[in-house]
Amino acid sequence: MHSPAHRPDPAVAPVDRSLEVSLRRKIDNKTKPPGSLGRLEDLALQIGLVRGSLTPTLNQPHIVVFAGDHGAARAGISAFPQDVTWQMVENFLAGGAAINVFARANGIGLTVVDAGVAHDFGARPDLVDAKVSASGTANYLEGAAMTPEQRDAALARGAEIVDRLAAAGCEVIGFGEMGIGNTASASLITHCLTNASLDDCVGRGTGLDDAGLTRKRALLEQALSIWPERPQVSRRPLAEGEVGRGSPPGGRTGEDGEAVLAILARFGGFEIAMMTGAMLAAARRRMLVLVDGFICGAAALAAARLEPGFLDYAVFCHVSAEAGHRTQLAKIGASPLIALDMRLGEGTGAALAWPLVRAACAFVNEMASFESAGVSEKL
Amino acid sequence: MHSPAHRPDPAVAPVDRSLEVSLRRKIDNKTKPPGSLGRLEDLALQIGLVRGSLTPTLNQPHIVVFAGDHGAARAGISAFPQDVTWQMVENFLAGGAAINVFARANGIGLTVVDAGVAHDFGARPDLVDAKVSASGTANYLEGAAMTPEQRDAALARGAEIVDRLAAAGCEVIGFGEMGIGNTASASLITHCLTNASLDDCVGRGTGLDDAGLTRKRALLEQALSIWPERPQVSRRPLAEGEVGRGSPPGGRTGEDGEAVLAILARFGGFEIAMMTGAMLAAARRRMLVLVDGFICGAAALAAARLEPGFLDYAVFCHVSAEAGHRTQLAKIGASPLIALDMRLGEGTGAALAWPLVRAACAFVNEMASFESAGVSEKL
Repeated sequence: MHSPAHRPDPAVAPVDRSLEVSLRRKIDNKTKPPGSLGRLEDLALQIGLVRGSLTPTLNQPHIVVFAGDHGAARAGISAFPQDVTWQMVENFLAGGAAINVFARANGIGLTVVDAGVAHDFGARPDLVDAKVSASGTANYLEGAAMTPEQRDAALARGAEIVDRLAAAGCEVIGFGEMGIGNTASASLITHCLTNASLDDCVGRGTGLDDAGLTRKRALLEQALSIWPERPQVSRRPLAEGEVGRGSPPGGRTGEDGEAVLAILARFGGFEIAMMTGAMLAAARRRMLVLVDGFICGAAALAAARLEPGFLDYAVFCHVSAEAGHRTQLAKIGASPLIALDMRLGEGTGAALAWPLVRAACAFVNEMASFESAGVSEKL
Repeated sequence: MHSPAHRPDPAVAPVDRSLEVSLRRKIDNKTKPPGSLGRLEDLALQIGLVRGSLTPTLNQPHIVVFAGDHGAARAGISAFPQDVTWQMVENFLAGGAAINVFARANGIGLTVVDAGVAHDFGARPDLVDAKVSASGTANYLEGAAMTPEQRDAALARGAEIVDRLAAAGCEVIGFGEMGIGNTASASLITHCLTNASLDDCVGRGTGLDDAGLTRKRALLEQALSIWPERPQVSRRPLAEGEVGRGSPPGGRTGEDGEAVLAILARFGGFEIAMMTGAMLAAARRRMLVLVDGFICGAAALAAARLEPGFLDYAVFCHVSAEAGHRTQLAKIGASPLIALDMRLGEGTGAALAWPLVRAACAFVNEMASFESAGVSEKL
């Protein structure tokens, strides 16, 4: 797959709130006590605003799983060997992974993308070849994980994949990932983009024991220490109050943009950079964006620091058992839909939350009103 | 619909745990880090134990909505007029209520039952006529809501409805309810069956304001005070630890059984008593039981006090915003799957949780193992 040179994309416009009053009125007139669908009512409002309609649609739900390898994985930051990345891609293609099962069960289309796996898959009709490098990222324990050109290619290819899905009719999109070592990468990105302590951003990943966790923390401290000139992002909050309830003041981040791009390149994850580009493209096309767990959350943080309007389009699907995810969600001000102590990635949290999102969209369109059903209102 | 005289039913057998080790091994060998599907793994184990299979099925998911009227509703314990009960039944039959939308969206069959609505619906092919009384329950502010014969008829008719669905192939069943005034009834039943303070069991229902809530509390105190001879249930815990992880010691409750039956009759709700009978019948037939919110929770409490083995079969679907629901769940030791501040009833929480339950069943059957997929295990 060839991609054009990276060029400045249009800003992500915050949603147009002029529909808010009429959407709320429509939701309140449904045959139920006011407010009794709880957070599903807020979600329905967000869906209506994102889609710009009192009768919103969310056709052709789709999840894109981006896979990439991490140079740092060979230094012992994961409980699993690096080969598991390509082995799991094969599992995705064979339909045997958790994301395959959940996407099938919930009627979600699935696309698997090689963002930069250190493995030659050959020509595979079901695998999107968006490989930025044949050997995965470089090791951030020695320098930058990727060059600026590689990062821009990843951002652009993510956007292209979303653009093609949008052109085919997809209106709601979730993202997932696979990459041995990528919780470490996400921890570094989360730390740099939120100014939270590194300890609050690091967890056991796929299942490190105490010694492994200590080693991972030490390696990530080292990765930070060898980059003394790293840029600082502002301490400006990412969002005012609840996500979907309002964009933060400001607009585009200006200076922060350069810092975010430098951090993405330094600590990489081709799959994380590609997801960032994909998320921003989805918001530009007014698709609803289903954000999965910790790794996707790092991409969403980058997207929100690049384009604050992005958060209007994002639904935070679940809270992961991975320690740093709560840190991300708190910084964003997001309340995820599901909390089941999962920590698998692959987009599984997004796939499981989709029926809740679909239900929120359906009740706005299909429920009777007090008037249409002849039901008496509150005394 | 005619029902036979109530007779002692067989006990609900706790699940056979001999499959537990092999189910856990199967779950652990799936291509994912061990434990990474979090509570979905516990749910998968419960499903396997309930269905008694390493390849469990949950075919023909179905929700039964029981509607009934409450004599006490005319005393001002609800924010809505009593006519809303029959009006909402008409809404269910027309397909315009929230439960219709959610059941359709998630592929769940729906049956609506007139358990004792104070309204003549005439002959309606889509409405199951299980009416125990043409005028709803009597007012518990003056005496017992129902006679022992009415209670037994309600229990038996609930069981019959489930037996018919089971015979038609239904393997997983959720219950919902409609009845103006039924949070008050559920509060009284919860108070009596858990020994929690009345305050911890009473909430705003469909939306009482502060004055309405104060009035509701006073009326419920009065309902208790005019029944000084009410029987006490034991303070024995309902469950040891997590639901689905083990039955409480003991077996059938013996003495408690009579107390539970007396409390059900006193504070009624034909729909609540009918749900209790339906839940016990479902457990006897090894169906998985999806428990909705606060009103269903009162029926589940009664079922668990009558037959402790029942809890093995119960999945607590969501935690309602209605104050007393947390009290119920804490007493049962249940962690619900969803927490979205909903308080609508109708079985909506069960309908929304079904895709999570279906996903848990699907991953056990459909995910590859490390061996079958050729994926390397943990280092």
